Amino acid sequence: MTDFPFPWTDLAARDSAPTEGLLQAAQALWGQALRFDPSDPLWPDRDRVVVSQPGLMDRLRDMTGDVDAGLDMSRAPPGQAIGTAVGLALAEARLSARFGRSLVDHRTWVLCDGADLETGVALEAAALAGMLGLARLCVIAGVAQSDTSGADRFAASGWSVRRVSCEVPGPDGQMDREAVRNAVVAAIAATVRARRPMLIICTQAAGIGSGRPTTDDAAVPAWAAVAARGRTARRGWQRRAFRHRLRAEFTRWQNGAAPPLWEVDWARAWRTNVGSGTPASPLAAAGHALDQIAQLRPELTCLTLAPPDHDPQYTALAIACGTRDHGMAALLNGLGLHGALLPFGVISAVSIDRLRPALRLAAVMRQQVVHLLCDEGAALQGADMIWLPVEQLASLRAMPNVFLFRPCDPVETRAAFTSALARTDGPSVIVLDGRPDTRRPDTEAAPHGGTLPLGIGPEQGAYVRSGPNVARDVTLIASGHEVAVAEALRRRLAGHGIEACVVSLPCWKQFARTDATYREAVLGTAPRIGLERASGFGWERWLGTEGLFLGAEAIANGCDDALLARVRAHLAAITTA
Amino acid sequence: MTDFPFPWTDLAARDSAPTEGLLQAAQALWGQALRFDPSDPLWPDRDRVVVSQPGLMDRLRDMTGDVDAGLDMSRAPPGQAIGTAVGLALAEARLSARFGRSLVDHRTWVLCDGADLETGVALEAAALAGMLGLARLCVIAGVAQSDTSGADRFAASGWSVRRVSCEVPGPDGQMDREAVRNAVVAAIAATVRARRPMLIICTQAAGIGSGRPTTDDAAVPAWAAVAARGRTARRGWQRRAFRHRLRAEFTRWQNGAAPPLWEVDWARAWRTNVGSGTPASPLAAAGHALDQIAQLRPELTCLTLAPPDHDPQYTALAIACGTRDHGMAALLNGLGLHGALLPFGVISAVSIDRLRPALRLAAVMRQQVVHLLCDEGAALQGADMIWLPVEQLASLRAMPNVFLFRPCDPVETRAAFTSALARTDGPSVIVLDGRPDTRRPDTEAAPHGGTLPLGIGPEQGAYVRSGPNVARDVTLIASGHEVAVAEALRRRLAGHGIEACVVSLPCWKQFARTDATYREAVLGTAPRIGLERASGFGWERWLGTEGLFLGAEAIANGCDDALLARVRAHLAAITTA
Repeated sequence: MTDFPFPWTDLAARDSAPTEGLLQAAQALWGQALRFDPSDPLWPDRDRVVVSQPGLMDRLRDMTGDVDAGLDMSRAPPGQAIGTAVGLALAEARLSARFGRSLVDHRTWVLCDGADLETGVALEAAALAGMLGLARLCVIAGVAQSDTSGADRFAASGWSVRRVSCEVPGPDGQMDREAVRNAVVAAIAATVRARRPMLIICTQAAGIGSGRPTTDDAAVPAWAAVAARGRTARRGWQRRAFRHRLRAEFTRWQNGAAPPLWEVDWARAWRTNVGSGTPASPLAAAGHALDQIAQLRPELTCLTLAPPDHDPQYTALAIACGTRDHGMAALLNGLGLHGALLPFGVISAVSIDRLRPALRLAAVMRQQVVHLLCDEGAALQGADMIWLPVEQLASLRAMPNVFLFRPCDPVETRAAFTSALARTDGPSVIVLDGRPDTRRPDTEAAPHGGTLPLGIGPEQGAYVRSGPNVARDVTLIASGHEVAVAEALRRRLAGHGIEACVVSLPCWKQFARTDATYREAVLGTAPRIGLERASGFGWERWLGTEGLFLGAEAIANGCDDALLARVRAHLAAITTA
Repeated sequence: MTDFPFPWTDLAARDSAPTEGLLQAAQALWGQALRFDPSDPLWPDRDRVVVSQPGLMDRLRDMTGDVDAGLDMSRAPPGQAIGTAVGLALAEARLSARFGRSLVDHRTWVLCDGADLETGVALEAAALAGMLGLARLCVIAGVAQSDTSGADRFAASGWSVRRVSCEVPGPDGQMDREAVRNAVVAAIAATVRARRPMLIICTQAAGIGSGRPTTDDAAVPAWAAVAARGRTARRGWQRRAFRHRLRAEFTRWQNGAAPPLWEVDWARAWRTNVGSGTPASPLAAAGHALDQIAQLRPELTCLTLAPPDHDPQYTALAIACGTRDHGMAALLNGLGLHGALLPFGVISAVSIDRLRPALRLAAVMRQQVVHLLCDEGAALQGADMIWLPVEQLASLRAMPNVFLFRPCDPVETRAAFTSALARTDGPSVIVLDGRPDTRRPDTEAAPHGGTLPLGIGPEQGAYVRSGPNVARDVTLIASGHEVAVAEALRRRLAGHGIEACVVSLPCWKQFARTDATYREAVLGTAPRIGLERASGFGWERWLGTEGLFLGAEAIANGCDDALLARVRAHLAAITTA
């Protein structure tokens, strides 16, 4: 079983024709405002453009010139385009604050339709854009109706809204294209003075206009002029960049490269901060890891849900988004898509289903985003973890191109961070348990008593953690907190003369990519038992159809007598059969 | 592997204390307005109450009387409470339109906090409530800040908003409780005259008030008076209901019962409409099924995404919600929770991840809701299906208490509807394929050449569809459109002397609940091959670890030579080994 190739057709195909207003706006944007150089379409300080209206894409391609090359996103499920664009604009704001306007000075444009404005994810993202005051963001929406309640909701979120009516008939009783064009041009020109994110909404009720709108040839921008304007802008930028005092740092961010000696520095920082402490939980270890990464790699950009005063551990470096999980995840996609930043999201356990569409879009776009999935109670109060994962783990493991890590201790936590940082072609989700592990966190290598070569550990996705590697009577496979249960079970089974081997399985996808020999060595030929406080969906892959899966009910009280009896009965039944 | 028991702790625990304004509002609501009789807390025409603030629940329980008995929902992830309440209010509107105000005349109340107002699902549901003009809905939010942008967004959606400031200090410099109480009482009294849904927002910035708010004893409503008011209302209603001309029909709806001879009538209607036609796709068959059910059981209430002019097949009976999938799914939960209605949602394939949190809430609440998952392209245009399911099928199959049906032909489609209608303790998702099946739809019983008893068919979740039942060389297991591919493969394999048996597997959860003997008889002992245009995640359960799974890539061109060669090679390798 391999990862499934992505069907782009899965993304919403809203194939209605663009409204006349949107078409005129697109022409005005390219002709008048867009900072875009066809000879180097990906230069860092270009304007970002997101199009979420497939019909418009076809019309744009009819224009002379390579329109696609200048687009950052050309299709997405409804609403995601606006969320991504807010992330792009946030990246611009963050980078220009760091490197100054001489290096970072561009805008983000969205061309979309009414469906985008209706969605909850767009409304969440719009509220965040208003809260963050992202004045260099402009959404242009072509709406096939007179209702502008969508625009009102954006205005309520602190956006500046301009309405362009395409319903005023001209002298011939049809739409007055000239008037529409002038209104759109004026609205786009007004973005230069904007102090808030701007929405330009072009309304056009059914029945207005001359059937399918046609492009007026005179309105098509002269492509040579567009290109010349872009080339001038880019060359000016290049001159400034060449002399800039932060040029090396900017280039490193831009290339997504780690600083020199990054791995050595991180290992040292880790040992100093985590290694010297008492046994820490994966959640606490993740807090340290985030702090260390933020110091060594300031391009890390962290969004959280909690308001600042609730979550001191992450606040120093985080932007709080409130209860807007889905919008936050869409913003993270935009931060990643912009380039030059490392997007991290700290979310609560119950959020994962809410932000799933954005996570999947990141997977489809092969975009690096890291979601830290913390227990809400533990993150807010340091109290015991109350989250019980059920099908969420299975549903994330099933999602193509998403790596799910469920570390059981600080060593595995660090390995998960290392893997997630190294994964530039897709999102990672790290599920963090708030309960402390009994194992000392300063042990760098995973202990195992078997014959596997040294260095084999969490980065393989699964490894033998303890117990006899070869002559085992049973293999206990677990992840996260349940590894501790498996370890306890191993010790109790040993008292009954049963030699158990504990396999920790933090990441299915990594383990599935190792070679078959390693997988067979880890899983062994003895009967297999899986332990995870979750639905057992999909576990047959590792346990076989004969294997025993022990979920939350069975291990509710840890390794108690009932669990021991159940395991022994299962093993006895197998031996008899 | 059984379904996992639901951890209620998975729902968001927002355990902060309620604001003073919310507390006063709750007291005013019970004391002054709520239509609630403790001696019969579930009488049909009671007011519906949704509480989404756990801290408030504890305070309410301190009040004398059985508060919990009058609540329809007392905890939910952020935003879902508002969405559910909009559904409750929609149910009231629909039922009073059918049975008149003498039988149905109640209100829906929500007590929530600021987090609820921020979420996308609440904003989507609020837009729908405004669009539908649900004037008997009142949301009371206690917000721990002065910012009222959340209220502005509701106002933009056509809500009437009243602000109650709890920040005006009284003579002692502390909060003036008396003023707050009067303002809240006036706001609640105003709901009687409301022509639009109402939001009462009580703002209270940090630092105002006397620390943790305390209940003023004088403000606690006299429980005996509350109960007397409710009893009077209920007795009046009982007298009217007893003499009502639609009493029998109302009682049937209320009990969720099918009309007499329902099964006979539906079978006849089905035969007349579908049986006489040409081979129809599951999608077309589902359209007929919905029409028939709507005629025989007018309590069916259908929400769709598409605006009316796009989807003529379902419009006659559907309420179009626009691109607000998540809000729509939350409304469906409310329709189900209200009682007396059969909630159906017609959604597009790409929507399923967007409405997942609402679907899961329905599963947790053990609420009957049916989602018909249509291909967007096919539903809008009748064109070929373009959706390729990837991990969505696996992730829904993994969700506890959700039945996923993927029928391959009209017979299985009807069986899926029958099962979904019979399932009153959880949601069902029916995945509908727009491509016509080659099999004639008028065959009532599934053909199989084996020894399984007659009557065994789709309602078992899986069944032998064709091929030799006992002496088979290979078992091909498929669902939906891939059953046709499996049938073609069976015929081609027969040409090479290989006897294949085709098993259709429309519903995993149903099949898992049949007894082991049946499962073994269906799956057989021959090598197994699974065919599904999706991720193979979880398929090891039916195929074993030795089985072969053929996903979208392998069957992209149907049963072509490459597929045949691959299957033959696999079988040859097994025989050799």
